[in-house]
Amino acid sequence: MTDQTSSTPVSHSQMANAVRALAMDAVEKARSGHPGLPMGAADIATVLFAEHLKYDVADPAWPDRDRFVLSAGHGSMLLYALLHLTGVKGVTIDELKNFRQLHSLTPGHPENFVTPGVETTTGPLGQGIATAVGMALAERMLAAEYGADLVDHHTFVLASDGDLMEGVSQESIALAGHLRLNRLIVLFDDNGISIDGPLSLADSTDQIKRVEASGWRGIRVDGHDPEAISQAIAEAKTSDRPVLIACKTTIGYGAPNRAGTSKAHGEPLGAEEMEGAKKALDWPHAPFEIPQEIKQAWEAAGRRGAQARADWQARIGKLESSARAEFERRLKGTVPAGLAGAVTALKDKLAAEPAKVATRKASEMALEAITPVMPELTLGSADLTPSNNTKTKAAVPVKPGDFAGRYIHYGIREHGMAAAMNGIALHGGLRPAGATFFVFTDYARPAIRIAALSGLPSVFIMTHDSIGLGEDGPTHQPVEHLSAFRGMPNISVFRPCDAIETAECWQLALERTDGPSILALTRQGLSQSRETGGADNLCAFGAYEIAPAKGEAQASLFASGSEVEIALQAKAVLDERGTPTRVVSVPSLDLFLAQPEEVRARIIGKAPVRAAVEAGVRFGWDAVIGEDGIFVGMASFGASAPYKDLYQHFGITPEKLADAVTARHNG
Amino acid sequence: MTDQTSSTPVSHSQMANAVRALAMDAVEKARSGHPGLPMGAADIATVLFAEHLKYDVADPAWPDRDRFVLSAGHGSMLLYALLHLTGVKGVTIDELKNFRQLHSLTPGHPENFVTPGVETTTGPLGQGIATAVGMALAERMLAAEYGADLVDHHTFVLASDGDLMEGVSQESIALAGHLRLNRLIVLFDDNGISIDGPLSLADSTDQIKRVEASGWRGIRVDGHDPEAISQAIAEAKTSDRPVLIACKTTIGYGAPNRAGTSKAHGEPLGAEEMEGAKKALDWPHAPFEIPQEIKQAWEAAGRRGAQARADWQARIGKLESSARAEFERRLKGTVPAGLAGAVTALKDKLAAEPAKVATRKASEMALEAITPVMPELTLGSADLTPSNNTKTKAAVPVKPGDFAGRYIHYGIREHGMAAAMNGIALHGGLRPAGATFFVFTDYARPAIRIAALSGLPSVFIMTHDSIGLGEDGPTHQPVEHLSAFRGMPNISVFRPCDAIETAECWQLALERTDGPSILALTRQGLSQSRETGGADNLCAFGAYEIAPAKGEAQASLFASGSEVEIALQAKAVLDERGTPTRVVSVPSLDLFLAQPEEVRARIIGKAPVRAAVEAGVRFGWDAVIGEDGIFVGMASFGASAPYKDLYQHFGITPEKLADAVTARHNG
Repeated sequence: MTDQTSSTPVSHSQMANAVRALAMDAVEKARSGHPGLPMGAADIATVLFAEHLKYDVADPAWPDRDRFVLSAGHGSMLLYALLHLTGVKGVTIDELKNFRQLHSLTPGHPENFVTPGVETTTGPLGQGIATAVGMALAERMLAAEYGADLVDHHTFVLASDGDLMEGVSQESIALAGHLRLNRLIVLFDDNGISIDGPLSLADSTDQIKRVEASGWRGIRVDGHDPEAISQAIAEAKTSDRPVLIACKTTIGYGAPNRAGTSKAHGEPLGAEEMEGAKKALDWPHAPFEIPQEIKQAWEAAGRRGAQARADWQARIGKLESSARAEFERRLKGTVPAGLAGAVTALKDKLAAEPAKVATRKASEMALEAITPVMPELTLGSADLTPSNNTKTKAAVPVKPGDFAGRYIHYGIREHGMAAAMNGIALHGGLRPAGATFFVFTDYARPAIRIAALSGLPSVFIMTHDSIGLGEDGPTHQPVEHLSAFRGMPNISVFRPCDAIETAECWQLALERTDGPSILALTRQGLSQSRETGGADNLCAFGAYEIAPAKGEAQASLFASGSEVEIALQAKAVLDERGTPTRVVSVPSLDLFLAQPEEVRARIIGKAPVRAAVEAGVRFGWDAVIGEDGIFVGMASFGASAPYKDLYQHFGITPEKLADAVTARHNG
Repeated sequence: MTDQTSSTPVSHSQMANAVRALAMDAVEKARSGHPGLPMGAADIATVLFAEHLKYDVADPAWPDRDRFVLSAGHGSMLLYALLHLTGVKGVTIDELKNFRQLHSLTPGHPENFVTPGVETTTGPLGQGIATAVGMALAERMLAAEYGADLVDHHTFVLASDGDLMEGVSQESIALAGHLRLNRLIVLFDDNGISIDGPLSLADSTDQIKRVEASGWRGIRVDGHDPEAISQAIAEAKTSDRPVLIACKTTIGYGAPNRAGTSKAHGEPLGAEEMEGAKKALDWPHAPFEIPQEIKQAWEAAGRRGAQARADWQARIGKLESSARAEFERRLKGTVPAGLAGAVTALKDKLAAEPAKVATRKASEMALEAITPVMPELTLGSADLTPSNNTKTKAAVPVKPGDFAGRYIHYGIREHGMAAAMNGIALHGGLRPAGATFFVFTDYARPAIRIAALSGLPSVFIMTHDSIGLGEDGPTHQPVEHLSAFRGMPNISVFRPCDAIETAECWQLALERTDGPSILALTRQGLSQSRETGGADNLCAFGAYEIAPAKGEAQASLFASGSEVEIALQAKAVLDERGTPTRVVSVPSLDLFLAQPEEVRARIIGKAPVRAAVEAGVRFGWDAVIGEDGIFVGMASFGASAPYKDLYQHFGITPEKLADAVTARHNG
């Protein structure tokens, strides 16, 4: 191996071996972890960080930095070694010694909300590369808006076989190739090994040919030849298309017995093998000890982008002050001042002129009101634009090589869409909202979970939210999806009942900046159940009394979304029968259950009979109606028929609800 | 267009136009549906059914038939028209007139559990092609076992752009190419149109090149040239690799204004456009009217395989009677007689010699006991074999072109695995059980949902089922997944607490033949909490009292899986404190909630304090413990640390549980 760092006497190999040694040491000390990838990919990472990455440890979150995404998140020690060696504040040698321990900055897989310098949370394979596509797209979109003076960087990914086997990566590769995201460079750690053994047990894909089929450029290099790697990256940076560089490597490079085998992947080497590896690598130093000159060479790499950052800051400084303030607001992700007013104005208009529309249509109305005051809002759909009602009148689609728009045709790639949205949110400067049918959140769930875990404020616009979609049938009808997301931490699930609640839920979703939201919206038209507008957001506690009882309530009816009008009709029947009944609209059950006990108790009320109606499963509702509460909803999958027939068939009607309440009240 | 059906005077075009006309008529009458695909792909389907498909309407479920999977399920009227025209019993013209209506045999998307002749449930894109890979794999595996005399057929798929954009299809294509499943032939309806508009809005993939990169053969033809289509299929049948035939078609072929546009895709044509289409197609007949000679030509096609079926039956008839009975048992999917005994023997052994093991290890022990009596059990893992403990000692892996094994290295393709398992289950003759980490069910969820909806008895072996997996951290730690599946209809979620319960849950999962099961299993070692063996399966009601109170119970503790031993330890503390406490093990909450009220009431008991402990979210537990019950579990995502530290950190300990019960008991 040759010396690639001409400014210091330290060789490439020494720098790379520092990464290998730290990875071995940390995994050994933790008695847990993955040494194979850091040892195999150390040469690639060293070339990237020492010669190419525009990066400055003085501000690892500098907006115009190059991004580096470790898609193969199990190789986290590679990343932690790089962050430590380059000198990112906080990532000390003690943190490396605490690898995989509670409260350390070095968790088992990279978590961007824990460790400075980590760009995104990875580990579930395929997520990193798919998220990086969103970052690279956001970079091009912002560059189109602000120019290369302010936005001009690359997104690098280190990906494994496993990343490329996962379907989501193929969705994302196809999208990136189609859009010609030429600032995206994927370094493929082509080590031919997976957990079960040689990759040949399960795969024989020609990855170069496959990405070329998706409009990428592919390059093959020896992943232990630093000159070849560096030259390939240099070429990739001039490409007009995204580039995958397949770097042939040996997993566990240096380990005398385990190198090139699956034994190197996911467990400590053990004292003897580690000793052999360090001897083979000519690394005579004690565990966690890095010779000063090697550390200094790495720290120099960590300042590669310092001048570029200073120049960028100088250019920012020359912006007109309001333009600068707006640019900085966008990068910070602060909600624009005009949002609340725009929503209130829409609500007041709706209170004056009620709209009897599907909530997907109401969502479009809200978006027409919001987009003019929120230029960062980046809408899109996984090829259901006319059904999701996501394309506002002014929305301009992004096209291959033309990134001036704010609308993304993601294609039939729900998972790739959600992951790209994560990348857009992480990049900063844009706020992603993407759409499909609610039932197809199943396809996107791993990326939605990353959004919830990482606290990314994406908005998932999920229309056709129940059997109310009708004829398409049970494959397209969610029944368990509300329940399945209400149980997920840190995601808000909204199911508004009419146009006013839809506007309020959009406001709540956008004002939330520490986690994602789902808007579950109807296909079918609904009455406007809410009569009042005003600045107060009644959905903010997750539930509120939308119709009080006439007298002391004998029954409380709880409902969300399209079933609120059913509850109101049942109330009319019950009132008629002399059972004073109140109706509580529950636009967000999870938000409601997170309220303090006294708030919940007040809203739940004291009526002796409690019932809930929702065109979904009961699971989770016992927390509101009690274990013996009445539930009118679904206990099976749906069916194919016009939606009114389905509501009758499954007994989700005002009559059934009223009769159940009456039976209980009398019984 | 030329006449391809030399045995009748009816032309290919007439036959294809019959399909087009029925599709137009049915969609028009339903005022809902997708005419574009049936009109565009009618030529392809006509060539396949009239000239190639080994198929006999006298028994559409004949085991050695060729399979035809309509992956583009929205084009369901293509399939229903074919089933009606060929003469499948039940699929009458009246059923076509009832397209998309309640209780019809013609739901919006194909449902194999509703309509005879439908091979699998499709609609969610990508599922059909991915399921077909499992069918094609099952065919090869059974052919390796039984020989070509008994098993020798093809699997055909009609797939759309949307199918190929979904990541799952790419996982499956890579798997099929790797294994060289040469009996799989995909007809790609290459119409260049998606819902948002021209496909060029979102995709520019070279599909032929992409499948070639995965080891397939690719062929391009004019999808309206029956001779070219037929020749391509004939070639494909002789291939040593799977084949994709890209058939260039015009969506909505024949419609004067909408053909070739997205307007043809998903809505009725309307009277005028339909009239124009029928004129252009030279189809002067009334709606739903098929001239007799055309119907007869189609019925002849429906008997193409009659002789082959008779020959096959003759060969079956020559089998030795016990071999025949076993073959037929396998095809029917009946559970083998030896299963219960094998499980009881294992339980008795464990009762005598308790095993302190992780339940993933217990699962391996169960599999070692079961596989000898259940030769159809087809195990596999998405590249986590050593962690999932799925490979029994005798298990032989399936290899490219060598299908004699019973173990499948699915690769890092959880979604492709679950869909392939659906195909294996649907094919018959094999019983699939596949594994990954429980958290990665998120990747496979759309296919698992199809299994639940279609009633397929797949077993999902999901290890590393909680924060108990430890150091890998929150990306790998399920907290909401138990909840997310318990809310899904028709899937059984098992979380056994020890080796004996694991054996019982395996038995329940395998004895269930009308739906899938999940086994959620620990990474970490557990005590053996159950002391008794015997033939009784105590897990069968989902919950049972595993430890009675000493005296009248003041507290009931409910727990599943790894938390049962925590509950038992808390009971010891509480007993010590003078609070007689019982413990209920809940290996399947969903099964328990499905019991009759009196069973539930008896098991829940009458102790004044109820508490549940589970290393997952509370969501759903209120149904057992009441809305004010005590819950000790997770209210957030997990963290990276050794698992014992995590249980302490998140307060899931006997002490916390006992203290909460004591506080309530005294309070």
